[in-house]
Amino acid sequence: MTGTGRIDSEETLIQGYLAPLAAGFPGAFGLADDCAVLAPAEGHEFVLKTDAVAAGVHFFAYDAPEDIAWKALAVNVSDLVAKGATPLGYLMSLAFPEAPELDWMRQFADGLGEAQRRFGMQLMGGDTDRRDSPLSITITAIGCVATGRMVRRGAARAGDVLLVSGTLGDARLGLFAHQERKMARTIWKLDNAELDFLEQRYLRPEPRLALIEPLLEHASAAMDLSDGLVKDLGRMCRASGVAARVRDRDVPCSPPTRKVIDALEGWRQVGLTGGDDYEVLAAVPPGKAGEFIKNAARVGVPVTRIGEVVAGSGVSVLGADGSPLAIEQPGYDHFAQAPKRRKRRR
Amino acid sequence: MTGTGRIDSEETLIQGYLAPLAAGFPGAFGLADDCAVLAPAEGHEFVLKTDAVAAGVHFFAYDAPEDIAWKALAVNVSDLVAKGATPLGYLMSLAFPEAPELDWMRQFADGLGEAQRRFGMQLMGGDTDRRDSPLSITITAIGCVATGRMVRRGAARAGDVLLVSGTLGDARLGLFAHQERKMARTIWKLDNAELDFLEQRYLRPEPRLALIEPLLEHASAAMDLSDGLVKDLGRMCRASGVAARVRDRDVPCSPPTRKVIDALEGWRQVGLTGGDDYEVLAAVPPGKAGEFIKNAARVGVPVTRIGEVVAGSGVSVLGADGSPLAIEQPGYDHFAQAPKRRKRRR
Repeated sequence: MTGTGRIDSEETLIQGYLAPLAAGFPGAFGLADDCAVLAPAEGHEFVLKTDAVAAGVHFFAYDAPEDIAWKALAVNVSDLVAKGATPLGYLMSLAFPEAPELDWMRQFADGLGEAQRRFGMQLMGGDTDRRDSPLSITITAIGCVATGRMVRRGAARAGDVLLVSGTLGDARLGLFAHQERKMARTIWKLDNAELDFLEQRYLRPEPRLALIEPLLEHASAAMDLSDGLVKDLGRMCRASGVAARVRDRDVPCSPPTRKVIDALEGWRQVGLTGGDDYEVLAAVPPGKAGEFIKNAARVGVPVTRIGEVVAGSGVSVLGADGSPLAIEQPGYDHFAQAPKRRKRRR
Repeated sequence: MTGTGRIDSEETLIQGYLAPLAAGFPGAFGLADDCAVLAPAEGHEFVLKTDAVAAGVHFFAYDAPEDIAWKALAVNVSDLVAKGATPLGYLMSLAFPEAPELDWMRQFADGLGEAQRRFGMQLMGGDTDRRDSPLSITITAIGCVATGRMVRRGAARAGDVLLVSGTLGDARLGLFAHQERKMARTIWKLDNAELDFLEQRYLRPEPRLALIEPLLEHASAAMDLSDGLVKDLGRMCRASGVAARVRDRDVPCSPPTRKVIDALEGWRQVGLTGGDDYEVLAAVPPGKAGEFIKNAARVGVPVTRIGEVVAGSGVSVLGADGSPLAIEQPGYDHFAQAPKRRKRRR
């Protein structure tokens, strides 16, 4: 079912486009029942996370449907992974501003299919409706973990080493490049390959599934980074009743991001505060940090030591001279910040 | 935290208003973690359902916050109950058009608290954001059922007796009364107590929790009625590969609804096609129907025989003279029907 024209019934949408995504999961009953049924494997329990993305806030209505679908699922899977949970399935609530076009829906379903194959999960159920509002996709993701083993956010201890996976700040720059490619090229003096890299980091976050085992084995606490390192680390500290000290120069940045940070005053804190990283922040006891880094490297994920957990409260970031930096904009708050309809210029 | 003024941070919203709703469920970690963790009791599995309600589609932005909260949870619980699942908890994704007022949020949290106490469940996690769109509440409800015992939608068999709980059509009339109280009083010639009854049926659906045990014991198949009897029964028939025959005069209606049906041509099919009933439709083997009715009565729920499952496909409704009725508007399709911003006049 492709072509132009629109999908005008929930039945067609579900049976034509969504049911194939549930085909591998018997408890979804081919999406012909009201509910899904599932049980964890012996000795395991479920980890659940719900997160919504909406056009104009988390993505742009003009984005490729495959990218929108990927990101809607990836941002939830990212949370599961940071808890040491293996993704299993998801429920999805879709709200359309108008009946979707056949081609759009086909590409959206393809993107979901690609993402769920990568993440090892299946669609279990959902709900669709139409509303007088921008497209939104609310996903509840379900993962599985050995009973009692979920990696908590609130269990960091003074003395733990703080580490992050991958590089930070790319997605925030990628968002700007996605909206203002021409300006980004001119001001940042990056080439198209570099801008493509940043843009992909924004559009296609890659949850760090390979880190599940190392996290379960070594981490005191962990969480995924979605609203910027300083803000999210602050949450970990509050939940754990501790403080954190981070060295700015140790925050890992990709080569293009490093170029922008070094060249432009206005972006110098993007690694500390840029959102949408979807990397993992972990607190690991000092005696285990070396092994954690080694095990992560073995599964292909670079992790970098950025600081330590200390007694007290709050997050301090130390600059090159060892004195604390003033943080200009601690991170993104999807709630406090009024939604803006962003426009794209290329 | 009450008063005028607005809530301007996600932290305040979560810790001040939502965390108390999660206090009884250890796996929610006081909403200070990213994810919830849970496992079913020995020999049980989970039943999951996700459903969203949005202002202008499923409720009105001016409705009492307690009523909005109640309905958002009740429509999901209604699904669980029809599957024979006992409600356990829920995740909630809230999207606000603007920072909510303190008083509004207090009342909304109170309504949720009242509903979750009634339904025996707790908040397990969630997500809040602000968007340029009407208020929406997406809930994923989780229930528990003995392994393999979930009551299916697609397991009705030819010969089964069809039964519904309570009365049908009230909520559809209640919606009209809620919008057009004065007109409803004039045209329908109902008094205020009758209109209040109908309006409450629309605003405060009561999932039939007492039916869980009788359904598990006797039903071949069951589902909740949300989009109108004829439409939902059609879904049960399709999922089960059977047909259904319903006698119009046997469809149970409350006294006020009966008055309207008898007096006004335009509403005579409201019991067959009115949505928002949130009653249970069950298919029960003929040898068990008597006992099902008796057991339901014992727990205080009236159930009424309305027809039978037969071989074939489709739903036919027989009128008083035994010949099939033409169904004017088979039911509500939240997807196909374009959203309308309804206005209230009193």
